[in-house]
Amino acid sequence: MRWVKLEDIQRFSPEKMVKASLLETDRFFLDLYCFEPGQSQKPHSHADSDKVYVVCEGEGRFRVGKEERDLGAASAILAPAGVEHGVVNRGPGRLVLLVFMAPKPRH
Amino acid sequence: MRWVKLEDIQRFSPEKMVKASLLETDRFFLDLYCFEPGQSQKPHSHADSDKVYVVCEGEGRFRVGKEERDLGAASAILAPAGVEHGVVNRGPGRLVLLVFMAPKPRH
Repeated sequence: MRWVKLEDIQRFSPEKMVKASLLETDRFFLDLYCFEPGQSQKPHSHADSDKVYVVCEGEGRFRVGKEERDLGAASAILAPAGVEHGVVNRGPGRLVLLVFMAPKPRH
Repeated sequence: MRWVKLEDIQRFSPEKMVKASLLETDRFFLDLYCFEPGQSQKPHSHADSDKVYVVCEGEGRFRVGKEERDLGAASAILAPAGVEHGVVNRGPGRLVLLVFMAPKPRH
């Protein structure tokens, strides 16, 4: 798929945050992460891949390494390879993030 | 720089479209491209890097290979390695794009 509208991909679940695939090649992936209030992505790290979050909607509390920041729409956050990172949607609205990762982690 | 607000990076020029660096690692770069009405990025290709455009503001006429589409905010466009791609801002407003490329091309 070469042309994607974010609204066609976006979806939420009352159970947990949803990761929806937007675009993917052998070199990277681009996902949409959708959080209801209270949902989070627990801190974790990727040994060999860099990640960027871009806030599309709402506000998130981002942690990268030991730093933590509350950031809203049109903010970009870099989580370099090997550095622990996570995000919490403390509400009150929904949180939607674009998430780029390169290279694509091998599972 | 790990935390960036797009509005702090965004800038326009009456001369030509502006490419502003947002985030960069050894593995990829993320730029902001800012177009006044009538400005464009001419069709070109990258042998070994995939590119994604995400429309933040305005509407662009995108070409990837032989396909052409007019796309507005919250659309993502994939230009795979080796495929010619370009964009024109036919106006009336400004056009702002997030541009992700991986791996980083070697100049």
